[in-house]
Amino acid sequence: MDYGRSGDAIDRLIRLALDEDVGPGDRTAEAVVPADARGSGLIFAKESLIVSGVSAAARVFRALDPAAMFEVLRDEGEIAGPGDGVLRVKGSLRAILTGERTALNLVMRLCGIATLTKKYVQALHGTKTQLLDTRKTTPGMRQLEKAAVRAGGGTNHRGALFDGILVKDNHAAAAGGIGEAVRRARARASPLLLVEAEVSTPGQIEEAIEAGAQMLLLDNLVDAELKRAVDQVRGRVPLEASGGMTLERLPRVAATGVDYVSVGALTHSAPSVDLSLLVEGA
Amino acid sequence: MDYGRSGDAIDRLIRLALDEDVGPGDRTAEAVVPADARGSGLIFAKESLIVSGVSAAARVFRALDPAAMFEVLRDEGEIAGPGDGVLRVKGSLRAILTGERTALNLVMRLCGIATLTKKYVQALHGTKTQLLDTRKTTPGMRQLEKAAVRAGGGTNHRGALFDGILVKDNHAAAAGGIGEAVRRARARASPLLLVEAEVSTPGQIEEAIEAGAQMLLLDNLVDAELKRAVDQVRGRVPLEASGGMTLERLPRVAATGVDYVSVGALTHSAPSVDLSLLVEGA
Amino acid sequence: MDYGRSGDAIDRLIRLALDEDVGPGDRTAEAVVPADARGSGLIFAKESLIVSGVSAAARVFRALDPAAMFEVLRDEGEIAGPGDGVLRVKGSLRAILTGERTALNLVMRLCGIATLTKKYVQALHGTKTQLLDTRKTTPGMRQLEKAAVRAGGGTNHRGALFDGILVKDNHAAAAGGIGEAVRRARARASPLLLVEAEVSTPGQIEEAIEAGAQMLLLDNLVDAELKRAVDQVRGRVPLEASGGMTLERLPRVAATGVDYVSVGALTHSAPSVDLSLLVEGA
Amino acid sequence: MDYGRSGDAIDRLIRLALDEDVGPGDRTAEAVVPADARGSGLIFAKESLIVSGVSAAARVFRALDPAAMFEVLRDEGEIAGPGDGVLRVKGSLRAILTGERTALNLVMRLCGIATLTKKYVQALHGTKTQLLDTRKTTPGMRQLEKAAVRAGGGTNHRGALFDGILVKDNHAAAAGGIGEAVRRARARASPLLLVEAEVSTPGQIEEAIEAGAQMLLLDNLVDAELKRAVDQVRGRVPLEASGGMTLERLPRVAATGVDYVSVGALTHSAPSVDLSLLVEGA
Amino acid sequence: MDYGRSGDAIDRLIRLALDEDVGPGDRTAEAVVPADARGSGLIFAKESLIVSGVSAAARVFRALDPAAMFEVLRDEGEIAGPGDGVLRVKGSLRAILTGERTALNLVMRLCGIATLTKKYVQALHGTKTQLLDTRKTTPGMRQLEKAAVRAGGGTNHRGALFDGILVKDNHAAAAGGIGEAVRRARARASPLLLVEAEVSTPGQIEEAIEAGAQMLLLDNLVDAELKRAVDQVRGRVPLEASGGMTLERLPRVAATGVDYVSVGALTHSAPSVDLSLLVEGA
Amino acid sequence: MDYGRSGDAIDRLIRLALDEDVGPGDRTAEAVVPADARGSGLIFAKESLIVSGVSAAARVFRALDPAAMFEVLRDEGEIAGPGDGVLRVKGSLRAILTGERTALNLVMRLCGIATLTKKYVQALHGTKTQLLDTRKTTPGMRQLEKAAVRAGGGTNHRGALFDGILVKDNHAAAAGGIGEAVRRARARASPLLLVEAEVSTPGQIEEAIEAGAQMLLLDNLVDAELKRAVDQVRGRVPLEASGGMTLERLPRVAATGVDYVSVGALTHSAPSVDLSLLVEGA
Repeated sequence: MDYGRSGDAIDRLIRLALDEDVGPGDRTAEAVVPADARGSGLIFAKESLIVSGVSAAARVFRALDPAAMFEVLRDEGEIAGPGDGVLRVKGSLRAILTGERTALNLVMRLCGIATLTKKYVQALHGTKTQLLDTRKTTPGMRQLEKAAVRAGGGTNHRGALFDGILVKDNHAAAAGGIGEAVRRARARASPLLLVEAEVSTPGQIEEAIEAGAQMLLLDNLVDAELKRAVDQVRGRVPLEASGGMTLERLPRVAATGVDYVSVGALTHSAPSVDLSLLVEGA
Repeated sequence: MDYGRSGDAIDRLIRLALDEDVGPGDRTAEAVVPADARGSGLIFAKESLIVSGVSAAARVFRALDPAAMFEVLRDEGEIAGPGDGVLRVKGSLRAILTGERTALNLVMRLCGIATLTKKYVQALHGTKTQLLDTRKTTPGMRQLEKAAVRAGGGTNHRGALFDGILVKDNHAAAAGGIGEAVRRARARASPLLLVEAEVSTPGQIEEAIEAGAQMLLLDNLVDAELKRAVDQVRGRVPLEASGGMTLERLPRVAATGVDYVSVGALTHSAPSVDLSLLVEGA
Repeated sequence: MDYGRSGDAIDRLIRLALDEDVGPGDRTAEAVVPADARGSGLIFAKESLIVSGVSAAARVFRALDPAAMFEVLRDEGEIAGPGDGVLRVKGSLRAILTGERTALNLVMRLCGIATLTKKYVQALHGTKTQLLDTRKTTPGMRQLEKAAVRAGGGTNHRGALFDGILVKDNHAAAAGGIGEAVRRARARASPLLLVEAEVSTPGQIEEAIEAGAQMLLLDNLVDAELKRAVDQVRGRVPLEASGGMTLERLPRVAATGVDYVSVGALTHSAPSVDLSLLVEGA
Repeated sequence: MDYGRSGDAIDRLIRLALDEDVGPGDRTAEAVVPADARGSGLIFAKESLIVSGVSAAARVFRALDPAAMFEVLRDEGEIAGPGDGVLRVKGSLRAILTGERTALNLVMRLCGIATLTKKYVQALHGTKTQLLDTRKTTPGMRQLEKAAVRAGGGTNHRGALFDGILVKDNHAAAAGGIGEAVRRARARASPLLLVEAEVSTPGQIEEAIEAGAQMLLLDNLVDAELKRAVDQVRGRVPLEASGGMTLERLPRVAATGVDYVSVGALTHSAPSVDLSLLVEGA
Repeated sequence: MDYGRSGDAIDRLIRLALDEDVGPGDRTAEAVVPADARGSGLIFAKESLIVSGVSAAARVFRALDPAAMFEVLRDEGEIAGPGDGVLRVKGSLRAILTGERTALNLVMRLCGIATLTKKYVQALHGTKTQLLDTRKTTPGMRQLEKAAVRAGGGTNHRGALFDGILVKDNHAAAAGGIGEAVRRARARASPLLLVEAEVSTPGQIEEAIEAGAQMLLLDNLVDAELKRAVDQVRGRVPLEASGGMTLERLPRVAATGVDYVSVGALTHSAPSVDLSLLVEGA
Repeated sequence: MDYGRSGDAIDRLIRLALDEDVGPGDRTAEAVVPADARGSGLIFAKESLIVSGVSAAARVFRALDPAAMFEVLRDEGEIAGPGDGVLRVKGSLRAILTGERTALNLVMRLCGIATLTKKYVQALHGTKTQLLDTRKTTPGMRQLEKAAVRAGGGTNHRGALFDGILVKDNHAAAAGGIGEAVRRARARASPLLLVEAEVSTPGQIEEAIEAGAQMLLLDNLVDAELKRAVDQVRGRVPLEASGGMTLERLPRVAATGVDYVSVGALTHSAPSVDLSLLVEGA
């Protein structure tokens, strides 16, 4: 139930979400529900899914009722089937009704990401290739969505522009070549940050490695090209493949021997899964 | 290019997104791109789509480079085909590279919503039924996503809990019946807010109307039930249908004569569409 | 004692008020009162008044001493006579002395509004006309002052520009006529927002109603004109009268048959009533 | 047109006021006025008044339209008669209409304070007694209201609890006597802060002065008592009188020879004066 | 353990410090320490020092773990020798490890200031001259550093530009002479603020006193000049000396009879003293 | 003159610094300097120093006068001797006088760090050992102080807890040994973050390397121990030495062959260097 210090960004997002949805007040609940009514609400799954984001949902209710109590019925990464409860909240009935939509909006999306990630992870089962996420996340939800990827069994790539160096083609163009760009990056990087470079031809692969690249990103290559790159690199640095990574293609990509595949759709196109909130015994 | 006062919430979201993605600095751009390099970036479509969110993308770059200049190539609601430019930004090359991902994350999602909305609107073409969105939006993106629905030709339902009254089953339960809940809402509402009530049986329909409901939400009814409700109400109040509204079903729902259908998937499950940023002449 | 989610705006106001009055520290209390001294303070009326804003006063002390305890002696809307206690706070003596002025500044103003509102409500007693407030509130105190109006027995008009549509003469001028302005408003409004229009002549009344106006504001009309408007409209839409609404005039206005009178002076010119804080047993 | 660094608190207030009144958007202006319409608005007096707060009104419009242009027609402290323009704003017509109410709410109150202050200052004309304000200001408007008092010809007392030391009866009680309280205050005060003490008897006067009080507050004394205090003190420290200071009484108080009278009503009970905004040539 | 209302600025600083050091998460603690591990940490001195800032250190841990418990082993102004514990914190082990550096960065600097101040105070022992600090503090740490000076036995000069008036040479130049500058300051000052003037020649001393200066700052004078100024002023106003105040020189300065010496180095150049955090029984 | 996106944290610090020093207003400048006076101020060195922080000083003035103009006379890393100008600001004279202290407080400290760093860098001249900073920075000034270290010729270690993994003895204790702690870190780290481990014995060195540590921190070892560690590791991973790194000792440490030395005193104990602001032609 704890996001540690990352909670600050999550609290900012929840405040923003409540400001936009509740603002000066929930006119319906204020009119219909007595201010001192207490109640219990159950968030439950309406389809099969992998759980993620339950803590964030709890934070929504706590923001509206600091004395609310919670029972986590299924935690990060667990499976829930139709009808299975995920989180129970007890407290102000107004707070439960007012927070319902915002809490569900969060948890439906995050469970959707975890559920989709699990499918991709299963498609790589039995191979040595790891599934990575990308920075193609929903604005404001980076940390929550990265946690959802972990809940689905995926591995997180760098979290942001500040905790990893990835030299892309635009950077190479700006620096006058991938080799020069990598050299600049190595010269400026803190001793604890690796430098990864995006490359697409055998020549670029050698140029990048010679300049000191410590990992390579192979973007939008077909399987045969990936295989050739693996053969060329011979384990000198880890290799990441990205672009057009459908569920069906993944086993073939893994068979090329790349170390990682990264998939933007995990976070930018996972459909929400269906969960609902039931007021119990109201 | 203007979101008026709503810009405040959008600015908060953009700040949050940049804080989580850029934070203390883009280590790659700082190392590879000179601080004074200038450039031009073109955001262009990689598939057919309806445009939305271009202003928000521009705000991202302006947050990083207040002197950036913009050329809007396609505005809210226009169609873009593969290769068509949508927005050109000129300014600090570092700012363009650093803001690229955040800007694209916004615009890919918002164009996705506009594009999906357009399909739903077309499915209702030639009927008197209007397409409404819901509050099932991405946390922090309420206003942007509501604008994307308009860009796709949809109509906005209430914006939030503070600018509309919708009495749902949980409220009815808390008040001891839909009639009592509606009466309380009418008594407390400002003279400029209508009261809508969620109902599912003929008895509830009469009870709600007698208590003063000014619009009814028919949730999760099958087409025949919707038809019966339309016949029963006979235009006394407008009717909204929701639940399980697939593209194929929409014409049949419209044929029942309901005034509105509302579709959560417009905002909670629209897949991102593909756009990219090209640094021009770098 | 609870303002629900509206607390956020109130907390911002209280923080602003304490920043401007206390800032880096209360130099007198720091010098004179030991840091660990405890005490009890009683806020009491020094004249007859209607109570409002007690929760806001409590929030001031809680902001300075999160462990402060409260006894609400008279709640929203109750009458207090000279010497009657309204709120007792127990906690850090420094916090009580430091917060005294800010708490009193709030509560003197809010009780003033409730007390004045009560007089207007009594002037309408026995008529069917309801008393409305306006948006002429103290900057930053919108929600508190709207609550004070309710405490005095008044009815709240729209809360803000975002939860109601009122087409005024300037809007009509910008649109090229009241009819066109109302039509635009109806076309863009969410299905749950009514459209009110400001009119002053019989012609405008018809034009507005035909264009779809759902309520009319009659601004600065004399009683005879109000009467004629009531006769003309014949209940097709509710009517609101405003402008020059003194206590003496109110019964004559009500006699014209308008549904509402709105009075800006309730909030922009209510004199503060006198309350004081007594440190008990110091 | 400049509030210097104090602008920060004023900007916070304006943001709070716009958030509460405009929030996600002005539904009327958005529907009725084209986004690119330009216009000119004139704030003018509808009664005789002393001007204050024009800069704050301008800040409201600038917050909504950073490119708005202003013409200050009457500045702080000047007289305006019915029909006299005070401020002209040119810019986005939507911004002018959306900001109108918030700008007027500020300026009607501040002109009210300046106008009332002027009357009190005139009542003291020809005496050596100066008019002081108090900390009984509207929460969030401390600096604006203190400036309004200056605009009306009054003198500002301390601005807050952090820039002056005033030992009151509650402090004296907490310290075990006015003498001890004053001694503690002198010992802790920075060398640039004077210590004022509230006293009401001849004994307290001597005790306070002996303990080092550098100014005395005589609260709620009748004129004869004030006169006796002046005679007793014989100019050793300046004297301030407060409590029940009506316009008619002021000359008699001045005649006692006190140096200052302080009047809370200047800020807590000044009625708003009437100003209006006219859209010119719309 | 309480900073009262001043806590707001301190909380802002701590949030800034944690944002820059922890941001989205402590990658090491997250990976290595279980989320539910509990622990105890002891901050202890590694050299002889005067304690200050312990409450601020506690606030750091509380920001990361609101349920953390504290034992203050040595309070503001006490002496600690090598190995002496200063603060014990019990709570989440991750929070202790994550907050360690920020807490130590604060407390090492503040103890450094208190320790250095004590040496200056001792150099003035037995004289009537008081040691003052200046506004040459670390940005964001004004209040904490002023408290550290008090902990070391020093006296605080004005806290900021808003709670004291000090007319310097640049002000005099802008006003056309020190006399005119002082007169303007006296005319505008609240009755509770003294006016101090910076002077360096006998002529300026007379001019300033005649204009109403209530305290004089003698900047960068040699001891003989200070002595002459004391003789010239003969106690009419207090005198403050500043500039080049080394520990060795202080007794000679005190011997001239000035009332105050102010020393910027107390806060701008105090070296950090060494403290460390030990996880107990981990 | 640009800190890019890092400006956000710097702006927060500057706002905090101005809030604490200026708050509601600079009482002296307001009283003495006309609001519309313009002027020019020159920040110049009063001793030999390495320049850093000039942009931050400029931001202070721009926060007070958005129209201020700047001339950077010496940029990051350049040398300035006594009397040499560093930054000229032209604009509102009040803004220059009001911002003077805050700007100087920043730049005196940052130049102090750059100047001290340069001395350490020179002590390592001719060796292959690089100088690293630490996280022992002033709360709120992390990015500015890291830039000052670069200005002095030093290399930045990780910026924060989020962009590097360093397993220390407390982490090892919590995990049950350095090997297990390193393994956990490697398993959780993003592919672009290296894992460094603090070790002190030959056994720990082997255990850490075998577990996958990619860099080693040798804390508080004497020179002979450092030499032995270099011999043992034989270049398998880079080595960092820290603890007790005085200027005189540095050449001996470099002679042991370690790759890095890290020095906390660069940022926690650098004395401020002397700069002053001269109002030109006032």
